[in-house]
Amino acid sequence: MQFETIPVEKLLAFKQKLIEHSPLIHCMTNDVVQSFTANILLAIGCSPAMVIEPEEAEQFAAIANGLLINVGTLTTERQIAMRLAVHSAIKAQKPWVLDPVAAGALSFRTRFCHELLALSPTAIRGNASEIMALAGLSSGGRGVDSLDTTNDALPAAQSLANSARTIVVISGEVDYITDGNKTIAVTGGHPIMTRVVGTGCGLSAVVTASCALSGDQLYNIASACALMKQAGEQAKQNCRGTGSFIPEFLDALSYPNL
Amino acid sequence: MQFETIPVEKLLAFKQKLIEHSPLIHCMTNDVVQSFTANILLAIGCSPAMVIEPEEAEQFAAIANGLLINVGTLTTERQIAMRLAVHSAIKAQKPWVLDPVAAGALSFRTRFCHELLALSPTAIRGNASEIMALAGLSSGGRGVDSLDTTNDALPAAQSLANSARTIVVISGEVDYITDGNKTIAVTGGHPIMTRVVGTGCGLSAVVTASCALSGDQLYNIASACALMKQAGEQAKQNCRGTGSFIPEFLDALSYPNL
Amino acid sequence: MQFETIPVEKLLAFKQKLIEHSPLIHCMTNDVVQSFTANILLAIGCSPAMVIEPEEAEQFAAIANGLLINVGTLTTERQIAMRLAVHSAIKAQKPWVLDPVAAGALSFRTRFCHELLALSPTAIRGNASEIMALAGLSSGGRGVDSLDTTNDALPAAQSLANSARTIVVISGEVDYITDGNKTIAVTGGHPIMTRVVGTGCGLSAVVTASCALSGDQLYNIASACALMKQAGEQAKQNCRGTGSFIPEFLDALSYPNL
Repeated sequence: MQFETIPVEKLLAFKQKLIEHSPLIHCMTNDVVQSFTANILLAIGCSPAMVIEPEEAEQFAAIANGLLINVGTLTTERQIAMRLAVHSAIKAQKPWVLDPVAAGALSFRTRFCHELLALSPTAIRGNASEIMALAGLSSGGRGVDSLDTTNDALPAAQSLANSARTIVVISGEVDYITDGNKTIAVTGGHPIMTRVVGTGCGLSAVVTASCALSGDQLYNIASACALMKQAGEQAKQNCRGTGSFIPEFLDALSYPNL
Repeated sequence: MQFETIPVEKLLAFKQKLIEHSPLIHCMTNDVVQSFTANILLAIGCSPAMVIEPEEAEQFAAIANGLLINVGTLTTERQIAMRLAVHSAIKAQKPWVLDPVAAGALSFRTRFCHELLALSPTAIRGNASEIMALAGLSSGGRGVDSLDTTNDALPAAQSLANSARTIVVISGEVDYITDGNKTIAVTGGHPIMTRVVGTGCGLSAVVTASCALSGDQLYNIASACALMKQAGEQAKQNCRGTGSFIPEFLDALSYPNL
Repeated sequence: MQFETIPVEKLLAFKQKLIEHSPLIHCMTNDVVQSFTANILLAIGCSPAMVIEPEEAEQFAAIANGLLINVGTLTTERQIAMRLAVHSAIKAQKPWVLDPVAAGALSFRTRFCHELLALSPTAIRGNASEIMALAGLSSGGRGVDSLDTTNDALPAAQSLANSARTIVVISGEVDYITDGNKTIAVTGGHPIMTRVVGTGCGLSAVVTASCALSGDQLYNIASACALMKQAGEQAKQNCRGTGSFIPEFLDALSYPNL
């Protein structure tokens, strides 16, 4: 199969647009990656805010430029707030993105992800196992680890994009971004990224920011993927292990002249 | 206007006092900055503890040397625990500090901040928009971003300090610390600090620690501001982006001979 | 007294086993150390997952290879989920480890730790004050700080290991690992580790991973202690303060050829 790719000049333009528009991103994400997610968004010029109380989440989703729903440490209370936020974002015509962490492996969150699917998220970003689970193909995974390659999951992603009227990102060794019709492939990155918590969750946040920009949404989302893969590669070259990878990764994402 | 400043020798004495007394700081702060806040307090020789369950928060606020209330990811449950902790700190005559994150922009937390204001916190630390909102001047901000300069907010801060019988810190390009009568200005720092999550919340934690020390409270709090600005400047000189800023900042704060 | 120690070749074999088996560790830990704990486990080749909702916690504890219960930011809701997870782990014959953060100092969590003690955790990892409190000797500590040396607490640890049929780790300047009969001592590390949040909580996570391996459990747990002390020493040599200690520590733990 032949896929489109993201040329370097498009990526540069994308980075510039993030800094110029500085989208305010409402992150309802898991307890583990809050700080890393905020620092990723800040590094690329966006403005993150983690608002989780039901009344506030509903109010803020209408104010923010984009909403991220990540089910990594879902609770009943958080679920209530997420529902209100999603409906508020939809009403205010703001983009919202679903990160279905470990969907398929755990029943409670899988049910919730299916509920949200019916509301047509602007985009979904998951690993191969998670996307296959959402598409109704039994997979499971081991918590957040994918047991499948993104290549295996591509047909599921395309079918999911069509049935849920959304853009699906399967991230892995190669990232695929598909609206069910057109598919973009993004290569690069490095396996060390799977040894640092939050690189996938952080990608979902950058995807949310990309959905808040004007222009072709599929290319914007693919640019978000390319941005993260490029930073991962650069950080890998400069780091001496998974610890120094983290500051190197944020440095690689940081916009210049700070 | 002419303001007092903090001379270098006072700042050195302040740092020494933190290490000698090692105040135990009860942090009830938001989910995003817990780890960074703890590491900031540990670096300067204090002892942080994040205790959040209502019964425990009430018990611990009386044991600790100071209490920090940060409403960044406020929930109903957390609100209940914070109320108990504040009343317990007041009863035990322990200092307590309010960080009104995004007050003005979100109704639920704004109501809670006004409720706490009536209890006269030892100090309040916020950005210009937050302080203006607490003082009853409509501002709002965009989540945690301030749309106003600290200079704009100074009259509001002075009026708030008087009406709530508290010390108000407005942090920004210049920090102002005022008891409504006397005002200290602290310059320095670097804009990169706004691109790393938790530098403001961390300042509120250091302000809380400074309130636990003996001596003039206004100078102690201004020293806390100067300490953080100085570390920010030093870190900026050594970092290559927002990622390496974080370890450099903590290194700059770390007391020697560790 | 004479204690056994861990020879270098055993430690190397231990590290290799972690990478080969890559145990999936269910971490129910406090809000402050989630990200650091995940990154420690990832660095040494394990797979962490933070699952906290009651239904999910019960389901996941049976799937994972080991369960960590850390009471640092215990709440009533978290307590319910932890109880379900522990019973599920016991039923599925999976190892589970208790980290009794600040037990003795705060009543709510102390009661819960005693409740869990009756269920015979596979291992308990605490500082001297926490272990003495669990053993029924009044100590208290100041939050997470130990006021006692591990040497003082050794008799309490041995008695606790016998009464609760568990392995007890007291960590501090010297770590002692005891099943009540045999005791291993692990020296090394550096005091700077007490100035970085989560090194103790991270050790409890590595202890949980070590319990998921085959072979002698006492030696495996002692190897976990030695691994962390060794990384702490190495990081201390390369760092310039508590900030750069963090990436250096994770780099020291990172397995090669990433």
